Amino acid sequence: LSLERLKRLEVHKDDTCAVVGAGTITGELQRAAAACGLFYPPDPGSVHISTIGGNIACNAGGMRCVKYGVTSDYVLGLTVVLADGRILTLGGSTRKRASGYRLTQLFVGSEGTLGIVCEATLRLDPLPRNAKTAMVGYLTVDDAARAVSQLMASGYLPSAIELLDRRTLELVSDRLPDEFRASLEAVLIVEADGNEAEQVGEELQEMVERLAGADVKVARTDSDSESLWDARRQIGRAVTKRRHSSLSEDIAVPLSQVAAMIGYIHEVSQQLEVEVIVFGHIGDGNLHPVFVFDHSQRAAVSAAAARIFRKALALGGTVSAEHGLGALKRDFALAEHGADSLSLMRAIKDDFDPTGILNPHKVFPEGPAEDGFLSRQPGWTSEIETG
Amino acid sequence: LSLERLKRLEVHKDDTCAVVGAGTITGELQRAAAACGLFYPPDPGSVHISTIGGNIACNAGGMRCVKYGVTSDYVLGLTVVLADGRILTLGGSTRKRASGYRLTQLFVGSEGTLGIVCEATLRLDPLPRNAKTAMVGYLTVDDAARAVSQLMASGYLPSAIELLDRRTLELVSDRLPDEFRASLEAVLIVEADGNEAEQVGEELQEMVERLAGADVKVARTDSDSESLWDARRQIGRAVTKRRHSSLSEDIAVPLSQVAAMIGYIHEVSQQLEVEVIVFGHIGDGNLHPVFVFDHSQRAAVSAAAARIFRKALALGGTVSAEHGLGALKRDFALAEHGADSLSLMRAIKDDFDPTGILNPHKVFPEGPAEDGFLSRQPGWTSEIETG
Repeated sequence: LSLERLKRLEVHKDDTCAVVGAGTITGELQRAAAACGLFYPPDPGSVHISTIGGNIACNAGGMRCVKYGVTSDYVLGLTVVLADGRILTLGGSTRKRASGYRLTQLFVGSEGTLGIVCEATLRLDPLPRNAKTAMVGYLTVDDAARAVSQLMASGYLPSAIELLDRRTLELVSDRLPDEFRASLEAVLIVEADGNEAEQVGEELQEMVERLAGADVKVARTDSDSESLWDARRQIGRAVTKRRHSSLSEDIAVPLSQVAAMIGYIHEVSQQLEVEVIVFGHIGDGNLHPVFVFDHSQRAAVSAAAARIFRKALALGGTVSAEHGLGALKRDFALAEHGADSLSLMRAIKDDFDPTGILNPHKVFPEGPAEDGFLSRQPGWTSEIETG
Repeated sequence: LSLERLKRLEVHKDDTCAVVGAGTITGELQRAAAACGLFYPPDPGSVHISTIGGNIACNAGGMRCVKYGVTSDYVLGLTVVLADGRILTLGGSTRKRASGYRLTQLFVGSEGTLGIVCEATLRLDPLPRNAKTAMVGYLTVDDAARAVSQLMASGYLPSAIELLDRRTLELVSDRLPDEFRASLEAVLIVEADGNEAEQVGEELQEMVERLAGADVKVARTDSDSESLWDARRQIGRAVTKRRHSSLSEDIAVPLSQVAAMIGYIHEVSQQLEVEVIVFGHIGDGNLHPVFVFDHSQRAAVSAAAARIFRKALALGGTVSAEHGLGALKRDFALAEHGADSLSLMRAIKDDFDPTGILNPHKVFPEGPAEDGFLSRQPGWTSEIETG
């Protein structure tokens, strides 16, 4: 089933919203909104190829979520085709609605298993007129993670704050500022945004001071900012070059547990002798550990991923922050949600799709959440996702 | 069933969230967060008496929602007791989660009909360090409504923007600035917030210029701001003094339809000879038409309210923006959501509460959405709500 021809894209400026077909590319919506001075903030790494329908199905996030929230925060209304062909019109373009159960929000993140989202009404916000970026280096990952938690606890909300660990830095080392020392274990890229350039610059400066890194580079111009972001953007390409296979994961933990989580990922990677790079949306506690490996390491990668999922859950986190469970992680849903929640989810699934024809074999567990879970995935080694 | 002793109130600064019992007063949470430099934005008019449990049940809003969103935007996790006594732990303190159906969000706004929310984990944001207020007067309500739609379409997001129509102004006339002319048909109270006082002042000034009112007063000091807000805060008290009975409603329409909606409310009020004052969170398209009346006018008020609900729906709006349907408006749920959505909501209700013991006679229609709907409400004339 392809929705790629559902390309409606209307910006309703007077209602500060957009009405968008499921097949519209998210980046196109962002450009159409910006042309009206408006802003669709969610920015998954795939923004230039992924569609609004897909973003809604997986409740996609991205780098700006730390300040602006995820896809669900922008979905005001949906047109959905149910399994039996009936068409539901849910919500609308009002910015508030406290009337009946929130079916609109139930569809967001349901991964196509409850109905087919064909069209969405999305809230738009004012477009910030300025943004400035800095890069801050640390001698330990712990220092970086603690600095982020403390920054946010002390009342700052960057428009993006991204972590790159040492192995990630090695991959994109040619993109780092010359003055950054080679011994850095972690780098943060931090952005402030707002309307007044001077104010944005001051806020970024204050954040950089609080982040208290070992090396710092504050962008002076927009093109400086671009080149700092370049390091982050090159990760995907660098990973693809590295080995035959990669697996990108997508956990989140509470902010205070990020340092512990990263430490654990590095520990497991050493124990099982698999290469993992860690980067991600650290301001949301959302990490993308990416395994790069060859065929002989498949079992070790599976075990490492399973252990990382379990650790994320033990720390109060989730096995999927912004990608969804799909088939890959469905077997961890029981550990994350428990049997009672899962049976209610199953009952809802049966209400909406009694014959189970919508996106089968997704979300709900079909086997134990064991170390070898990946071996049950056909063709999983080709997955590449760069968040 | 009372949850008022569920008073847990813990601010987890390092995770920028709070863990709060259902019986905690929302204002107490706000103060506890502010003591840590953090911010719980939802601010229903009842903030000093309403509880977090109630706010979650009705997806409460308030004046700051235009910039900061409603209760649902802050709910990360819930502890819920199901109808059969099982306890669900949903979500947690991570700021992102794309794993399974969003049961947490399904409980928000479910008005106690799916389970008993006992505890919540709520996201906290940085506390803005400054806010500034202005009052802007208009010679027509249309001018005011159009100014708001245009302000927001041109990329401004006030931290609050409230409308008071002429009848509301008459009730609180002693709180208006001396220099405001008596012929005003509408007043907006608008607030900007942020960290730097100077920047906040500039932003407010820009907004005031764009709002292009007939009379303007910009607060110079915090106490000036307080006295401008005083007019808004006195509405409830002034209404209570006015007549024996009042009925406060809570519709929302798309921003571009606010002028049409207010015009219709005034028209119906004249036709049916009932007194109605209109104020509300105009930046969200959320209006609180309040009927003030005596016993003999009950039938006319019921008819006026029913017509206003139908008009809000015809304009693409909702019969409840932030109060919920309860028993009062349940009969309009069919007109708002349609039979298919409603039957799915009913199926979900049956999944969670098969014997129907949780808050019966709420949310779901029990009769036609006719002009005389209020006559079926026992004791409805004593309802007073000032949004």
